Order: sequence, then C-alpha cells, then structure tokens
Amino acid sequence: MKIGIIGSGVVGQTLGAKLVELGHDVALGTRDPKKLDEKKNMADSLGEWLARVKKARVVSFEEAAAHGELIIAAVHGQVTLEALQMANAGKLGAKVLVDTSNELDFSKGMPPRVLASQDRCNAERIQAAFPSLRVVKSLNTMAATVMVNPKALAGGDHTVFVAGNDKDAKATVTQMLRWFGWTDILDLGDVSAARGPEMYMGMWVRLWGAAGHGNLNIKVQR
Amino acid sequence: MKIGIIGSGVVGQTLGAKLVELGHDVALGTRDPKKLDEKKNMADSLGEWLARVKKARVVSFEEAAAHGELIIAAVHGQVTLEALQMANAGKLGAKVLVDTSNELDFSKGMPPRVLASQDRCNAERIQAAFPSLRVVKSLNTMAATVMVNPKALAGGDHTVFVAGNDKDAKATVTQMLRWFGWTDILDLGDVSAARGPEMYMGMWVRLWGAAGHGNLNIKVQR
Repeated sequence: MKIGIIGSGVVGQTLGAKLVELGHDVALGTRDPKKLDEKKNMADSLGEWLARVKKARVVSFEEAAAHGELIIAAVHGQVTLEALQMANAGKLGAKVLVDTSNELDFSKGMPPRVLASQDRCNAERIQAAFPSLRVVKSLNTMAATVMVNPKALAGGDHTVFVAGNDKDAKATVTQMLRWFGWTDILDLGDVSAARGPEMYMGMWVRLWGAAGHGNLNIKVQR
Repeated sequence: MKIGIIGSGVVGQTLGAKLVELGHDVALGTRDPKKLDEKKNMADSLGEWLARVKKARVVSFEEAAAHGELIIAAVHGQVTLEALQMANAGKLGAKVLVDTSNELDFSKGMPPRVLASQDRCNAERIQAAFPSLRVVKSLNTMAATVMVNPKALAGGDHTVFVAGNDKDAKATVTQMLRWFGWTDILDLGDVSAARGPEMYMGMWVRLWGAAGHGNLNIKVQR
C-alpha cells in the first residue's frame, strides 16, 4: 500500500521503517526535506533513517499526503492542524487519516501536562477542520516501539484502540494494526470517542513515571 | 478496623457491605440518616441495605468521619468537598481519606462528560482544602462491583491504582485493597498523580460504551 506519513520524529520514523519492512511504499513527510542531517530529539537524523530503511523517500508534508492511499499524522498534537494545512489536507478527498497525536506540554517540567479534555480533542478538531478526510484515532496510547511490535510486550496480550466516524476507514486501520501484530483491537465508536484515548494519556504519563520506562500498555479485561 | 464511609450510593453501599462481611466496624454516612426508606438511583434504600448487611450503622457524614480510623469518600466528585465540609473534615487530624470520586456530568446525555483534566483534579483539591488529612486516590477507575470482587473479572489479573503524598496512608489503603482480593496494586506517586486515574475516566466511559457493560478494568502490562 502507498502510505504517506506526516511527521518525521520518532513515531513517524518507527512506523515508516516498520511499514517499509512489511513491503509498503512509504513517503515520510517532513517540514523541510532538505534537512537530512539535522539531529532529532530521541530519533535518527533523516539521512541516518534513510540509510537504515533504504526503500523509502523523505518528502514534504504535501508530497507525503498526495502519495498516500493511507495517511498517518505523526506530529505533536499542538501542530497537527498546521502540518495538515501545509499538506493541503483539504484537497485530499476522502482519504483515511490515522491520527496518532497527543497534546503534551513539556514546558512546566516532568511529567508533561496532558492537554486533552472533554472539550479539547485533537481528532475531533482535525475531523471538523477537514470534513472530507476520514479520521481514525489510533496508536496514541503507547510508545512508538510498542506500536509496531506489540508481541514484544506480554506476548501481545494488550489493547489498541480505534475511533472514527467511518467504518471502512476503521477497517483499513485495523488491517494495518494486524500487520504490526495486534490482536486485541477495540473500536470505541465515532470520532468523539477519541476523547477516551486522548484523555488516557493523562494516565499514561503517570504509568510511565511509576514503571520508570515507556515499554508498557494496557489490556482491557472485559 | 473502624471505617467511616462518606456517601451512601452504590459505591458507599457496596464498599460498606463488603467491609462488614470482612468483619470491620462500618458507619455509612449519608446526608440525612433519617431517610432510610428513600429510593436510590441504582442502589438499595438504606433501610434495605441495613436489613441485608446487618452489622452496620447508617449515620450522618460527621458521625461517619468521626467513627472511622479509615475514611472513604464515596460521593460524586462534584459534591465531595461539600460532603467533607459537612463531615467536619478539617477537625479529623491526620486520618487517611480514600477518595474514590469522579466528576461526571450526565446533564448533556450519554456517555457522561468527564470533567477531570490537568487543571481539575478532585483528589488534589481535597488535599489542598484539608491539608491535615492524608488523601489517597484509589478505586475510582472501575464500577463498584469490580472494586470489591476483582477476582470475578479475568481471574483478578487487572490493576488498581493508589496516589497520595503519604506512604503510610498508601500502605493502609493497599492493605484494604488486598482484603478485597487485589494483587496488582500500582502506586502512581504523590497526590498530583491522581490526575492520571481521574483523566482515565474519559477512557472508561468509552470502554463501557464499547463493551456494553461496566464489568471491566485494565491490566497494566509492563
């Protein structure tokens, strides 16, 4: 599948590398695709990433969005709308957009403040700004390494969520999650249900603190 | 142990009945202890509860708080401070208070709006209002039936949280959780960490919707 990723930090790089490994045609979108040597926070430079991943391209947000049959937003929640505007997301028709974002504020120390609430949900905001896109919230509830390798944690016995208005779009994202090895994929409902996984991040940062590492996730026992 | 419960709805009744069954001396506090016949939402009348539980008393908030070596706040988050003021909580010294509350707004339909956020944490507010009390957030992340009978769900393989400033207080609450059958008790940190389980309620209401029932909880795989 042709996949366009909006964002080239640790989430975009990790998802992109895994999707290339699985045989997909990945375009990794970044703000300035000429800056291949720039050091990144907790991630490779894009030159290092390309050298490692090989069969992928680093392109602009706009090119990545145009390339993808499936688009993944993998930038910080605070800049998702801006990045999607740069990607001309209003002109993409009914493409499926996976929103992996969280709004975290690191400016007041650790753990970061989690800005999501009943009245502040990034997936809902994206869906409202780009009504033609089919937005599916997923994968925001864990670290990037867990996203693409669930089996490495508790034998894969934990849960990933999808939320969005379009059933076919959720089916497409569910298929991608199965490629990664997910078996417990829980549909929470329409895009308003994305408030759940976004507010959960307030718990996640505390679990991270208590465990002393981010290699964790929750299993919904039901 | 002498246990005082502030609140006589389904959470207070369920915790109280279980603690009586375990041999503890329980005083269930209610706004007006003369109204034993009043029908309650999703719970027994207090007369029915007393007839069923037998060895317990129904008293005022103030008497329940005075009675308890351990106090459990089991009223809605929106009225916890008011109930604690009625209970003279400022005169209780360093008693341990378990805060089980959530702020849920049912006025705009289902699922309820979950009001917790980084800037709105009931446990922190209670601790600030009553600095002598040793507040421990716990048990707010599940339905009452799960609180007192964790083994009935997935063989007990799921997680309950504690958060608070005082280690001894958390140890006392941990002991109570073990009485109920909890084995995975995760200490999230000081009282500010209560933002985690309170914001998680935004997820819980969606899990409840997706599962179609509230007999669920999360296991933290780490």
